[in-house]
Amino acid sequence: MKLEQIKDPQFLKQLNIEELEDLAQDIRTFIIQHVSQTGGHFSSNLGIVELTIALHYIFDSPTDKIIFDVGHQSYVHKILTGRANQFTTLRQFHGLSGFQKRKESQHDVWEAGHSSTALSASVGMAIARDLNHEKGEIICVVGDAALMSGESFEALNYLGSVDSKVIIILNDNNMSISKNVGGLSNFFSDVRMSTQYKNARNNYISFLNKSNLGKHVYKLTKKIKDQIKNNVINDHIFGEFGLDYIGPINGHDFHDLFNAFILAAEMDHSVVVHVHTIKGKGYPLAENDHYGLYHGVAPFDYRQGICKQESKTISWSEVIARQVEKWMYQDQDIVTITPAMISGSCLRHIFETFPQRAFDVGIAEEHAMTFAAGLSNAHKKPFITIYSSFLQRCYDQINHDIARMQLPCLIGVDRCGLVGADGETHHGVFDIGILSAIPHIIMMTPKDAQELKKMVNTVFHHFDHPYILRFPKGTIEDIDVDLHEEIELGTWEKVIFNPDNTLTILTYDSKVNTVANYLIKEQLPVNLINARFIKPMDEKMLDELSQCQQRLLIYETDLMTGSLGSLIAHYYSQKHISMDIDYMGIDDRYTPQGSLDELLRLEHIHLDDLKQKVKEILNEKRKS
Amino acid sequence: MKLEQIKDPQFLKQLNIEELEDLAQDIRTFIIQHVSQTGGHFSSNLGIVELTIALHYIFDSPTDKIIFDVGHQSYVHKILTGRANQFTTLRQFHGLSGFQKRKESQHDVWEAGHSSTALSASVGMAIARDLNHEKGEIICVVGDAALMSGESFEALNYLGSVDSKVIIILNDNNMSISKNVGGLSNFFSDVRMSTQYKNARNNYISFLNKSNLGKHVYKLTKKIKDQIKNNVINDHIFGEFGLDYIGPINGHDFHDLFNAFILAAEMDHSVVVHVHTIKGKGYPLAENDHYGLYHGVAPFDYRQGICKQESKTISWSEVIARQVEKWMYQDQDIVTITPAMISGSCLRHIFETFPQRAFDVGIAEEHAMTFAAGLSNAHKKPFITIYSSFLQRCYDQINHDIARMQLPCLIGVDRCGLVGADGETHHGVFDIGILSAIPHIIMMTPKDAQELKKMVNTVFHHFDHPYILRFPKGTIEDIDVDLHEEIELGTWEKVIFNPDNTLTILTYDSKVNTVANYLIKEQLPVNLINARFIKPMDEKMLDELSQCQQRLLIYETDLMTGSLGSLIAHYYSQKHISMDIDYMGIDDRYTPQGSLDELLRLEHIHLDDLKQKVKEILNEKRKS
Repeated sequence: MKLEQIKDPQFLKQLNIEELEDLAQDIRTFIIQHVSQTGGHFSSNLGIVELTIALHYIFDSPTDKIIFDVGHQSYVHKILTGRANQFTTLRQFHGLSGFQKRKESQHDVWEAGHSSTALSASVGMAIARDLNHEKGEIICVVGDAALMSGESFEALNYLGSVDSKVIIILNDNNMSISKNVGGLSNFFSDVRMSTQYKNARNNYISFLNKSNLGKHVYKLTKKIKDQIKNNVINDHIFGEFGLDYIGPINGHDFHDLFNAFILAAEMDHSVVVHVHTIKGKGYPLAENDHYGLYHGVAPFDYRQGICKQESKTISWSEVIARQVEKWMYQDQDIVTITPAMISGSCLRHIFETFPQRAFDVGIAEEHAMTFAAGLSNAHKKPFITIYSSFLQRCYDQINHDIARMQLPCLIGVDRCGLVGADGETHHGVFDIGILSAIPHIIMMTPKDAQELKKMVNTVFHHFDHPYILRFPKGTIEDIDVDLHEEIELGTWEKVIFNPDNTLTILTYDSKVNTVANYLIKEQLPVNLINARFIKPMDEKMLDELSQCQQRLLIYETDLMTGSLGSLIAHYYSQKHISMDIDYMGIDDRYTPQGSLDELLRLEHIHLDDLKQKVKEILNEKRKS
Repeated sequence: MKLEQIKDPQFLKQLNIEELEDLAQDIRTFIIQHVSQTGGHFSSNLGIVELTIALHYIFDSPTDKIIFDVGHQSYVHKILTGRANQFTTLRQFHGLSGFQKRKESQHDVWEAGHSSTALSASVGMAIARDLNHEKGEIICVVGDAALMSGESFEALNYLGSVDSKVIIILNDNNMSISKNVGGLSNFFSDVRMSTQYKNARNNYISFLNKSNLGKHVYKLTKKIKDQIKNNVINDHIFGEFGLDYIGPINGHDFHDLFNAFILAAEMDHSVVVHVHTIKGKGYPLAENDHYGLYHGVAPFDYRQGICKQESKTISWSEVIARQVEKWMYQDQDIVTITPAMISGSCLRHIFETFPQRAFDVGIAEEHAMTFAAGLSNAHKKPFITIYSSFLQRCYDQINHDIARMQLPCLIGVDRCGLVGADGETHHGVFDIGILSAIPHIIMMTPKDAQELKKMVNTVFHHFDHPYILRFPKGTIEDIDVDLHEEIELGTWEKVIFNPDNTLTILTYDSKVNTVANYLIKEQLPVNLINARFIKPMDEKMLDELSQCQQRLLIYETDLMTGSLGSLIAHYYSQKHISMDIDYMGIDDRYTPQGSLDELLRLEHIHLDDLKQKVKEILNEKRKS
């Protein structure tokens, strides 16, 4: 069928199983073709096709509210709620979001981007519904890895103690992003393998009238329902939280899904429906992907699959991973920790080479940091690598457990600054502000691969502080650096400096080279400082700049409040030094999705904006 | 015995049960007498006397490492490790800490203050031990409420998947701070009531030779051990995490404790020992306290118990609670949420009056905020009250779930600024910096009860933003305020303002009145502004101050980086306005414990320091 013609999920209710299976096939083809063109979350959406169709078949959105945890697996939901025709704009500027977005549709009743919030939100929405005496189910779809994250657990525990009903769909693909970890994950595997599962499935089939799928079929007698419950509802861990449990269900079988959902709907208190799905279903390369290569994809040719391209550049993530790996050969005490980001953080080789010293703790950022603190406290040297926006989850642990106890470690902060298509929940623009105020921290922002590697060397040569090393998304030219090459802590670099120039640009990370190229090309009388340490700042250089009466232009692509510019403003003001400073950075708002170029222009922090600003200042100076 | 003479826990090993019971009695008397004099954590330490003695009897600290979660219940441990003679200095400036502190003793191997970090740290320390091929148990003592917090769960789940062994002592008093919440809490209650518990206990007793307690008694035959295991080790929830389980154990019976610990020590992988203790044991008023009145106490007469004193002042916490309660009568949509702080946040009356609209989610700050977001998303009006330093746990939820979605709510931030005796982990000095950078937030800091109430009114009259209302620990004179009295958003107040004066002090919270009293008393030619909105700042007034060429003195008792002063410095600098500003605030370091007076002097932010600074500036001005 023409998916672009779907206006509303109501049409589903008229279809029979065969037609639903055809629809599932059409949706899969659509996702494979579209997402491989635009990029986006691939495997998780292929895995959830039948599950999403079944939800919209049995329940009535938006009266019944369907909340997808994270929301990256809501593409099928978007197609069924009338947004197929927008998929060419997926994750683009002003285009369809890669997550649920309330402004897109009345069927999107919640928004996320970060993991493990859906359960807490669902409990809140369920209690609000009951206080208002409103109708409608609250249905929360959460992956197995996201369920094992702390906040999900807090919500699960709380839900067990309240009367309001939530239907939790546990979308268990035993993978989530990369291979799942933790004791509970083993437990789920056991459940899936149990004969109880097979028995349960047979029981379903026996009472199902396959030829007629109208809702009346499911008006079962109490006796039959009890029989099903006895077979299908087990206690397991959820019983100990005070929740009912149905499952595990084959997530690619409409009969099983319908029965489970109807049973869940008929219950009068909260229930977990444990659905087993195959991530990447229908695209064999994705089905067999154990490293998350097909989790979030850049555009690729779906007839070929993702090919490793020969390139002279490598990702920033890989640069730091490779240098740390070099050090792991040298120093037995270095250990590596990731919260579920082996692939995203390019750690596969470290995990294969040092299986005893590399730890994937799952989507558990809080635990990751305190775990690192425990290792450091016992004189190990932890390297934790984490995305900037996910680091927001463990601010307290970095402050309270690591910095306060002065436990040395290296925290690699990945995806700093604007990240593009993932949008407002994923931009890494807050970390400088929240981390630079923490005592004992050293915070570094290298301009290129060489400087990054020297910083890693410096960290492991000293290792007496919590070190933050932040780097952006994207790629960089790789340069080999010996382990003995260091950088002096707290020093900035004069990239271009002629005391006769009266304007100095201060910037950091890859912007340093971008700005240098521009200044050199245009032969402008402007100095350039690589402010590679956010903390401590190079106060000697700041004093020198004031002594030679430089006008400053601080060029950042992070949130302005709390960032380098505000630290410099405060520094000079505290010293009663009057300086003429211009600031470029992100204003007090959330930046949407789009290409990096579009977003930099939107926030007026594009290189072209800088050029304009430099021109203005130089003209002003000429006039004065 | 003279507890002050204890140097080391080694002496314990020579004692028989009767002597140990005498020791327990002596320790209880000591705690009751000392903590009632100094103030501190009372009930939790009375509950853990036998448990701590038994740990030091069976295990060998510091080879075996004992980590207390939070650490507020480590007083018995401190007494047994040679620190009884320092208890007169408990929680005082330069005195004994109320938590474990590594610098105090080799027996303190970890530090906390915030809940639910011990398990993560223990896993880290256990893995480090095994990587280094070292000996010694890692023993983690965690309360039932702390175990239900997200980070503990993340660690528990991770521990189940690694080979390194941790012994988890679940100190279950079914209360932790106030009455416990959550589905798991009911589950634990069921376990405690089960006959299996009683049977297990009888089994212990039957094989125990009570007259001889030398360690050799516990060299049991394999057969007997298996018999115990079959009776005592249940699977329950911990089995599903891949952990062994022993319990529940009577935490006030040395025989039971010894047997359980020996069994745990002999196991070769991680095990949970579930110990049932009575919080406040030995002090009847504390035993029967269901609201946490005896959890953390100020000095009181132990012969009488804590008496509610008649006073004209009430706590800031109570002022906001009372005003919100008034509003709850008016507006059915207002709901109140607390993460386990009914008593500390003075919410008892709200919970009794509006049981359907008041929610204690347990020690689950992350869930608390997203749960509030869910309620707000469904058009409820959530009031969440939380301590500043615990709010650090849910920075991401405030940013990502509340502010980003522009979900209106009122977040009351309690215990802002320096808090005194609880020390560096509890000072609420980071919140302005981390929250003020978040878009859409409105942040208020009232100078007194009247202003606080007007702010609450303003919030509920508008309710179209996430509002942060921060207030300090301590008390204030209460003043009645009608619900219609509002304050204009974003406006500061000229408390003293004569344009002829050339110095203006900007400050906020109760410091406004302190400074006003001083300026009036000394009749100084100095203006005073109540900067009651941190965000948005009153830019009109900032501009006016620059126009009438005021020199500014910004007086804060929070961390300087990211705080009001740095926001003002950045504001003027962005507008190219040169201002002469002095800053007072906490420098880039962690402030220790002590009285408020001592700490303000230590940080050079005491009123006397302000007076000195004002004198210097006025003299300077006279000279120039």
